[in-house]
Amino acid sequence: MLVSEISEFELINRIQKIVSPQNETSIESIKKLGHDLVLSIDDDAAVFKSSHTSNVVTTDALVENVHFNLEWTTFQDLGWKSIISSQSDIASMGCKPTFATITLGLRPDLPVDGILQLYQGMSKACHELGGTIIGGDIVASETFFISVTMNGSLPIDHTERQILYRNKLLPGDLLCVTGTLGSSAAGLHILKNPNLMDFNSSMVKNLIESHLHPSSRVSEGAKLAKLGVKAAMDISDGLMTDLKKMCSSSNVGANIFLNQIPISPDLKILFPNDWIEFAVSGGEDYELLFSGNEKIISLAQKTLNTQINIIGKITSGKNNVTLVDSTGKSVVPTYNGWDHFKSQEG
Amino acid sequence: MLVSEISEFELINRIQKIVSPQNETSIESIKKLGHDLVLSIDDDAAVFKSSHTSNVVTTDALVENVHFNLEWTTFQDLGWKSIISSQSDIASMGCKPTFATITLGLRPDLPVDGILQLYQGMSKACHELGGTIIGGDIVASETFFISVTMNGSLPIDHTERQILYRNKLLPGDLLCVTGTLGSSAAGLHILKNPNLMDFNSSMVKNLIESHLHPSSRVSEGAKLAKLGVKAAMDISDGLMTDLKKMCSSSNVGANIFLNQIPISPDLKILFPNDWIEFAVSGGEDYELLFSGNEKIISLAQKTLNTQINIIGKITSGKNNVTLVDSTGKSVVPTYNGWDHFKSQEG
Repeated sequence: MLVSEISEFELINRIQKIVSPQNETSIESIKKLGHDLVLSIDDDAAVFKSSHTSNVVTTDALVENVHFNLEWTTFQDLGWKSIISSQSDIASMGCKPTFATITLGLRPDLPVDGILQLYQGMSKACHELGGTIIGGDIVASETFFISVTMNGSLPIDHTERQILYRNKLLPGDLLCVTGTLGSSAAGLHILKNPNLMDFNSSMVKNLIESHLHPSSRVSEGAKLAKLGVKAAMDISDGLMTDLKKMCSSSNVGANIFLNQIPISPDLKILFPNDWIEFAVSGGEDYELLFSGNEKIISLAQKTLNTQINIIGKITSGKNNVTLVDSTGKSVVPTYNGWDHFKSQEG
Repeated sequence: MLVSEISEFELINRIQKIVSPQNETSIESIKKLGHDLVLSIDDDAAVFKSSHTSNVVTTDALVENVHFNLEWTTFQDLGWKSIISSQSDIASMGCKPTFATITLGLRPDLPVDGILQLYQGMSKACHELGGTIIGGDIVASETFFISVTMNGSLPIDHTERQILYRNKLLPGDLLCVTGTLGSSAAGLHILKNPNLMDFNSSMVKNLIESHLHPSSRVSEGAKLAKLGVKAAMDISDGLMTDLKKMCSSSNVGANIFLNQIPISPDLKILFPNDWIEFAVSGGEDYELLFSGNEKIISLAQKTLNTQINIIGKITSGKNNVTLVDSTGKSVVPTYNGWDHFKSQEG
């Protein structure tokens, strides 16, 4: 069987079965060094405790022509985004970024100036949103790739319980999201189909900017944790995909109220028929998806300087994620790829 | 200017100038999270303190057809070696491996079984020599690559001063090495030139095994640190290259006594004219290069269950690394690549 014939989920599942048993004795000996493994898989980042500090670590790779295209992005934006996506995983655990290591696989025909601009973008993202680059490795490769490993931690006076996990969704809780959804996916769609759009339009520019230069919700994640939110994840693979992962981890279901999903005006105007598709199935908005009871959510909406929208409710229906339209009807996509939605009776 | 037109050293130098200034304010805010950056470049691993623990982190990437060849290596050996090389960087700081994250870039036509064997090799290396895999990322890539980020730490009761650094060589100290040198490079040479050798010979097999399935000196590194050794580095790029880096960091020089370099009998017999070249310029033996005064070295030779040889002496001649032959004459390589050595008068 080839890698192309198996899903990533299934491959990781098989890998876990190999890694986990041999891990156990290793973890015991690592305890003697003062570190305790709390969570190693099934979330945005792994969690370990060292003395009084709770630490998280996440790793993300960007590969040319898979995750980015040098015809569309500047090196500086590429560096920025490579850090943002890792910060976002740290933020979704309620932690702040600390130390990053960068591995680059470089084609020999890449411009040195480009690589320096890449690091300028990385440094800027660290400077503005947290974390610092402390090491790395540069190797030759026929395919250009960037691999970022980012550590993060809760402030010393926090407790382990204040880390935000995927598996803490509770039935009855409100499902919320920071910012707006779908703009990044729409920006990518425009970049892939330049004939569709006028690149001089500021609305088009805004959507493209959302894709090439997103932000990470670092301060929001830490604040939500302090307010008592327990469950969070960042939306990097799209609302539906990521919510399904959260529900599966938490053993619950969810209803999403389509008309409550926050959408930027630019997206609604430029894609009057497709905006909901971008919002539900698009990815790379790096917004936080989280839940809490009414009191906590109301407090969060009042205290955070960030738009927070209630977009659904957690249910006890295990792994059953349902989209509900404005008339109260549940809707399902007609086929793979979420190209369209169809009303479903009952 | 293209990446191919600049040395890795020069590229990293330019990157540092970009990263360092912006790092400063980030490091201040990270202090509030309870972490203190001790050393971020110029060694095998970066060092940071969290509460009472001194931590190190290193990252290494292996790229197909640059660092490995699937015609020569099994997936299991490849996984094993990818962990060993990271453990070795941790060992050379006097620390023990703790948490590893693995990023894989996979060609779609790679066999799933191979990837599982890769993880078997990784898990085995962690199990036998330390560390545990706690996370990672798997992405599609036209070029197969493996990126390992490994954390390590000193035991809680150790102090920061017991970390082994590259820049602690002192004039007058003895220069030592664990194990033997050159076997890995000779093994690679045989793999690249299969017509040269009989693959059924056990001597040939031993050298190839040295290249494909090396070990890391994890327990030795920690023991040397406890005995009072201050300066160490692992030999991954070859004795001469790595010693020059250490001397440059420490602002000292060194004399290497060629006839004292430990060589395996297999290497001497199979390559009667070239063994010294493999030992001095070959890489990937993952032995520890370290220094100390006579008392400490004598203690290390008595207490460690590992061959430790004195191969030279640290001098005050800044950055001046000299090879000395059995007659006491200094020798220099005739040209790039260390193909031959030539006696030098005086």
